[in-house]
Amino acid sequence: VTQQIGIIDLGSNTARMIVVQYQPHHSFKLIDEVKENVRLAHNVGADNMLQPEPMARAVEILKMFVSLGRALNLAQMIAVATSAVRDAANQAAFLAQVKDATGLSLRILSGEEEAYYGYLGVVNSLALQDGFLFDIGGGSVELALVRGRGLVSGASLPLGTVRLTEGFLKSDPPAKSELKALDKHLDSALEPVTWFSHQPILQMVGVGGTVRNLAKMDQRALRYPIDKIHGYEIPFARVDEWATRLSKLSRAEREQIEGLNNDRADVITAGVLLIRKLMQRSGATTLWVSGQGLRDGLFYEQLLIGSNPSLISNLRLFSIENLARLYNYHVVHAVKVRDLSQALFDQLMPLHGYGPLERELLAAAALVHDIGVAVNYYDHHKHALYLVMNAALGGFSHREMVLIALLARHHRKGGVSDEGLGGLLAEGDLSRVAKLGAILRIAEYLERSKSQVIQTIECVIDKNSVRVITKAIGDATVEIWDANRRTALFRKAYGVDIQII
Amino acid sequence: VTQQIGIIDLGSNTARMIVVQYQPHHSFKLIDEVKENVRLAHNVGADNMLQPEPMARAVEILKMFVSLGRALNLAQMIAVATSAVRDAANQAAFLAQVKDATGLSLRILSGEEEAYYGYLGVVNSLALQDGFLFDIGGGSVELALVRGRGLVSGASLPLGTVRLTEGFLKSDPPAKSELKALDKHLDSALEPVTWFSHQPILQMVGVGGTVRNLAKMDQRALRYPIDKIHGYEIPFARVDEWATRLSKLSRAEREQIEGLNNDRADVITAGVLLIRKLMQRSGATTLWVSGQGLRDGLFYEQLLIGSNPSLISNLRLFSIENLARLYNYHVVHAVKVRDLSQALFDQLMPLHGYGPLERELLAAAALVHDIGVAVNYYDHHKHALYLVMNAALGGFSHREMVLIALLARHHRKGGVSDEGLGGLLAEGDLSRVAKLGAILRIAEYLERSKSQVIQTIECVIDKNSVRVITKAIGDATVEIWDANRRTALFRKAYGVDIQII
Repeated sequence: VTQQIGIIDLGSNTARMIVVQYQPHHSFKLIDEVKENVRLAHNVGADNMLQPEPMARAVEILKMFVSLGRALNLAQMIAVATSAVRDAANQAAFLAQVKDATGLSLRILSGEEEAYYGYLGVVNSLALQDGFLFDIGGGSVELALVRGRGLVSGASLPLGTVRLTEGFLKSDPPAKSELKALDKHLDSALEPVTWFSHQPILQMVGVGGTVRNLAKMDQRALRYPIDKIHGYEIPFARVDEWATRLSKLSRAEREQIEGLNNDRADVITAGVLLIRKLMQRSGATTLWVSGQGLRDGLFYEQLLIGSNPSLISNLRLFSIENLARLYNYHVVHAVKVRDLSQALFDQLMPLHGYGPLERELLAAAALVHDIGVAVNYYDHHKHALYLVMNAALGGFSHREMVLIALLARHHRKGGVSDEGLGGLLAEGDLSRVAKLGAILRIAEYLERSKSQVIQTIECVIDKNSVRVITKAIGDATVEIWDANRRTALFRKAYGVDIQII
Repeated sequence: VTQQIGIIDLGSNTARMIVVQYQPHHSFKLIDEVKENVRLAHNVGADNMLQPEPMARAVEILKMFVSLGRALNLAQMIAVATSAVRDAANQAAFLAQVKDATGLSLRILSGEEEAYYGYLGVVNSLALQDGFLFDIGGGSVELALVRGRGLVSGASLPLGTVRLTEGFLKSDPPAKSELKALDKHLDSALEPVTWFSHQPILQMVGVGGTVRNLAKMDQRALRYPIDKIHGYEIPFARVDEWATRLSKLSRAEREQIEGLNNDRADVITAGVLLIRKLMQRSGATTLWVSGQGLRDGLFYEQLLIGSNPSLISNLRLFSIENLARLYNYHVVHAVKVRDLSQALFDQLMPLHGYGPLERELLAAAALVHDIGVAVNYYDHHKHALYLVMNAALGGFSHREMVLIALLARHHRKGGVSDEGLGGLLAEGDLSRVAKLGAILRIAEYLERSKSQVIQTIECVIDKNSVRVITKAIGDATVEIWDANRRTALFRKAYGVDIQII
């Protein structure tokens, strides 16, 4: 049964609500999001008292979230608060005020829980096996060590961007002495977290608005071909460059940076300095950006209700099936095209020499090859490219998404093109698209009547040609005749003739 | 209840099947199409005997259509045949062969019925009130006169492209004498159809593969910014140019023309010469291309079952609602944004001076502004642009579609841009998008919690500023505060200040 859930996360900087439509253990889709920069922790001071104005702002926004939840008829709402409320001396008064004005009972997450849900958000959306995580908020930063997709260690430190900025970077631009003091503070705060470093070096994943904004700035600077943040990679050298550059700029100068969100302009410097420090300490060479975190983690617990741990077991397959399901794919046809594609792939191994990755991407493209019909039947191969490239496709790198999208694009028409996405491809990928796309296209036409009339195929590879011997149940005249008409791409890609009989 | 229907159309040139998913009187979507160039009328000769080979090809393809229908679980199939079968001396034998091999009972359409269904396809997908229609097939051409959306006169003439080509243009390239004979033949065949001409000149609409292919060639030649055929307009001068050019080319030369489908390369010349002749006789100055025709007409009769005549009563509104429904729009929210937009539009009339067309396009954009969420919540305003531009949006011109798409695009973020579609806009349209988009954006944020909290608005226009006085049920603090934050586009577009209170 399809359900809708609202998840509210009241942070030190931002209040946010997501609304997700889902079927437990089956499929999900984000359908709404509202966020507001409430700065709840603003001017908290040493006595940790939330101030009246920020509290009133937060309550207004929460009221709006509740109205939205009512308007969307949400059966379920989960509302959590993190470090600003957790650490507040006047926590009880604030919670009462919220309850009174909105009816919401905020659940205060401990630092450990915060780290856990951030971790759940990441491991259910990035193909991370082993690595470090950090999640930078306005009040705190959560650190975690992941081994074999499991959470091994976690910590929460009061190093959020609002807190660091208000505590250290008071001048504009920051004074050298302030930067020095901040640096020293970070070192001593991180010192006790001895496990946050490893040989051989592990992957580093970053979560939170600061990291997302850094990724956006970096993409704009590099003219990255797409504006997808989740899964974006930034080498340490570039993080270092940004940290150095930001340290020298005034707020007004920072506001000129392309891609920097205005309401992050005051805290971005402290945030990027923290990121550099975390990478330096752990020795990480690349930062992998996660667009998902705490809220998503809270959601995955609901999606996978009854499972322990709350991990999607085959993330990449789940993502592809989820995408296909969102557009009501014709399962039997898609699976048959996948099976025929893989049969061709396996038997043509001597000709292409590809391995498990290509086999998996081919299967993924086969499952989603027709989703573009949701946009329009005409040109649905092109619409499939658009939908794949704009989907939330967890577990795949940007390059892999492009490969899947290009394969779906080429399942029925045209010669091979990179569709302007060449900048995301690796050496040899266009030839990969041609060779795998040629297989997918033949498989598609062998399934032209969507009737599974072709049961199995057997490939006989001669010197300069391939014969594909089909075994059909019923009349496959049209399928065989038509598949033979769609072999131009194959002949071009492999340089051998092919005949389907 | 959602139903699926298969509609098969066996023409002289092409056999085609469409599969449409629909709810009667409510919504529909094309979900599959297969077509094959069977050339059933090939070598029919003077004795009108269908030949064994073409008959066998047709039967094979029909078998495949039936398999597809079975695979898609179609509850209903409609199969019709047009002039090739209608005129065949061996019609009974062919029908028996089809019935025997496929189980299909082909319904033979009379020339009058053929003209009627083509007309239904056109008037339910183009905003045509009065005009001439022609539908060119391989065997025959259907002509019709439409007044007030009603079919006034109809005729079917044996002037199909295969028939004309095989009867007259035997040389390659065609000999001058052949062209002359063809011209004479067209004149004398059209002579009796006295009603196919009118003063003042009426709009001319063309249907069928020849016209679609001519449109495609013309779009490629002109580097038209989108490849949407339905609703494309070609001035007579360009039709004349194409007819003259094609008359001189050999088949091999024609095959080099960008956009010409290979399986039309032999019959395109006769087809375009016929189009020119039809335009000359009726005095039409522009050809309006319809991507819809006979098959669609047969479908609309089912969609509108019980209605007489089978006309969608408010085509443009139906198209927009259909599009919104395909993506499960949030009706109450969308309608409220539309109402608020129109209230602003009406009261700000002194500032923009726009009329009913702009008001309608604004309403249309309001209804579909959120459909992009079907692709991804993030950047859903951009996805809305993509979906509108690629939708089958009946009743709107290309320019109007672009305006709706751009308005939806600008409902939440960014400054005004033409998104590369400027070539389809008219003078002043970008300013139209800015002014209407600014209104839509304010309306959207006044509905931010999707709760219809703002009931009505009243605009007070002063010299250099507008005050919008809201009347709310409940707490609209966030809506009002947020709408005020989204007024930059308004201030820029109108050059006046605006305050929402």
